[in-house]
Amino acid sequence: MMMAYQGKIGMLGAGALGGFYGARLFQAGHDVHFLMRRDYEMVRANGLRVYSPQGDFLIQPPVHPTPEAIGRCDLLIVGLKSTDNDSLMHLLAATAGEQTLVLTLQNGLGNEERIVRTLTELGQADAAERVLGGVAFLCSDRPEPGVVRHTAHGWIRLAEFGEPVRERTRTIAKLFAGSGIDCKVHDSLRQIRWEKLVWNIPFNGMGVAGHHADTAAILADPELQEIARGLMSEVLAAARGDGVVIEATFPEQMIHATLCMEAYRSSMQLDYEQGRPLEVEAILGEPLRRARQAGIETPRLQMLYGIVSRMAGERGS
Amino acid sequence: MMMAYQGKIGMLGAGALGGFYGARLFQAGHDVHFLMRRDYEMVRANGLRVYSPQGDFLIQPPVHPTPEAIGRCDLLIVGLKSTDNDSLMHLLAATAGEQTLVLTLQNGLGNEERIVRTLTELGQADAAERVLGGVAFLCSDRPEPGVVRHTAHGWIRLAEFGEPVRERTRTIAKLFAGSGIDCKVHDSLRQIRWEKLVWNIPFNGMGVAGHHADTAAILADPELQEIARGLMSEVLAAARGDGVVIEATFPEQMIHATLCMEAYRSSMQLDYEQGRPLEVEAILGEPLRRARQAGIETPRLQMLYGIVSRMAGERGS
Repeated sequence: MMMAYQGKIGMLGAGALGGFYGARLFQAGHDVHFLMRRDYEMVRANGLRVYSPQGDFLIQPPVHPTPEAIGRCDLLIVGLKSTDNDSLMHLLAATAGEQTLVLTLQNGLGNEERIVRTLTELGQADAAERVLGGVAFLCSDRPEPGVVRHTAHGWIRLAEFGEPVRERTRTIAKLFAGSGIDCKVHDSLRQIRWEKLVWNIPFNGMGVAGHHADTAAILADPELQEIARGLMSEVLAAARGDGVVIEATFPEQMIHATLCMEAYRSSMQLDYEQGRPLEVEAILGEPLRRARQAGIETPRLQMLYGIVSRMAGERGS
Repeated sequence: MMMAYQGKIGMLGAGALGGFYGARLFQAGHDVHFLMRRDYEMVRANGLRVYSPQGDFLIQPPVHPTPEAIGRCDLLIVGLKSTDNDSLMHLLAATAGEQTLVLTLQNGLGNEERIVRTLTELGQADAAERVLGGVAFLCSDRPEPGVVRHTAHGWIRLAEFGEPVRERTRTIAKLFAGSGIDCKVHDSLRQIRWEKLVWNIPFNGMGVAGHHADTAAILADPELQEIARGLMSEVLAAARGDGVVIEATFPEQMIHATLCMEAYRSSMQLDYEQGRPLEVEAILGEPLRRARQAGIETPRLQMLYGIVSRMAGERGS
């Protein structure tokens, strides 16, 4: 097993996503520090338990109740819900130095920009040069405090916010790969973010607006399946307006792959059903705003945003 | 007061709409027979009470529990919810003869066609020649059994399914006008039906899909107001595909008029909130199908139909 990476790693947001990846990195021997709020006492006392089809395990990692207790890190991995981005200022002030790399594995568009803005507001120079983004394909949840339940997938596509792939991009990819996580480097962060949205926009959005419609319910209903296709074609058009060309066959691949999956409730649907904040802006609002800036008409996305925003009882980010 | 009309009138569906218009006609001295199911005992015992800003009143009209008890009529006024159209066969078999005129005041598209088809299936010749349609602008509800509460408006636009206005069209308009109801004759039934849909589609549809969004909530939210405008422009395009030209300024007139109204919950929103069937097909589905037949793209209407259908738990009519 490679151990090329020797730095201190901070997991900001150790929920279903951050908890899973952090646990894998810690399990592989890395110096991973977890920021935990609700689960702090539980994990400090009993450790962090991961249920996974690849094997269950229990770790006793360093866990901290505040970012100050973690202190400066070499690499920060952001696994916060994007609805918690207002806390980035407090989190990064304590944990990010002038050399710290910040990798966000959050959903949707606009998170890297928010991190760059926050670092810049903290007085750091060249912040945009130290931000990376990753798209995580992971099915996991947190059934109880101190427990992460991994059910499927887990692979990551990694890229630089400043776009050209560098040696460090490959080093971080190896950090994941050496921890048992399929992690590939991609040239264009915008490409992988928009491609993820081809799935996320219809299935997250309709999972909420469509009244508890999981993936199987959407695809079983000819009208809803047609709406999902229409949304996907709007995402392709919006992506093109943002300079990203997605293969015309990509939406059908997504439909096909989803037809082959078990019925799946998207993260936004789960959040809605459990009364948690919805990632409306990252997944629907910011893509819509980019389409508008480029003069691209996306009427279905606009409706979805309008309806889901109202259902979320929130607007703006 | 004119009493030109001397025939026997049957009110099929004496709810908030049929109950109001039937009561006005009966009050003016016409031979109106009410078909009532749930309210039959109550109205037979205590009469039908109407609360109205134009004056409250109580009538003791002939009320019948079955269409057979009403028997053949000269004029039938259909005030059923379009979701009850499956009962038309039973209702018309007992009440419609070869000379009977049938006027539907139901919402949306497709009701006249359904009545013509039903009469034809009953073996009647020239059914299409005896069907009329009216668009009712009425705010009323049924707060308790035997009570109709009229809150605003009440005017009717009347036309022939077979389109050219005839002497009998004017006779029926006078029947209403002589009963205190503003009723004007229009050349084109399709025109008045599509114009009503310019309002009905956004405000009924978004009232359900938009999570309890009444008219004020829709118009107060810039995103939802924009969606309403987008839907209205799709209705204009769909109408044009169906041969109906609506003035380009009409949607803004509707927005303006609605901004001037008190916050209003559309009939579909009320039905949804009270667990009743939704008129999805007449108000959303049939307009969408006509747009498709004409090759007109209406992505917002499609989404609204898909979402509301799912929420209604029904599909097809």
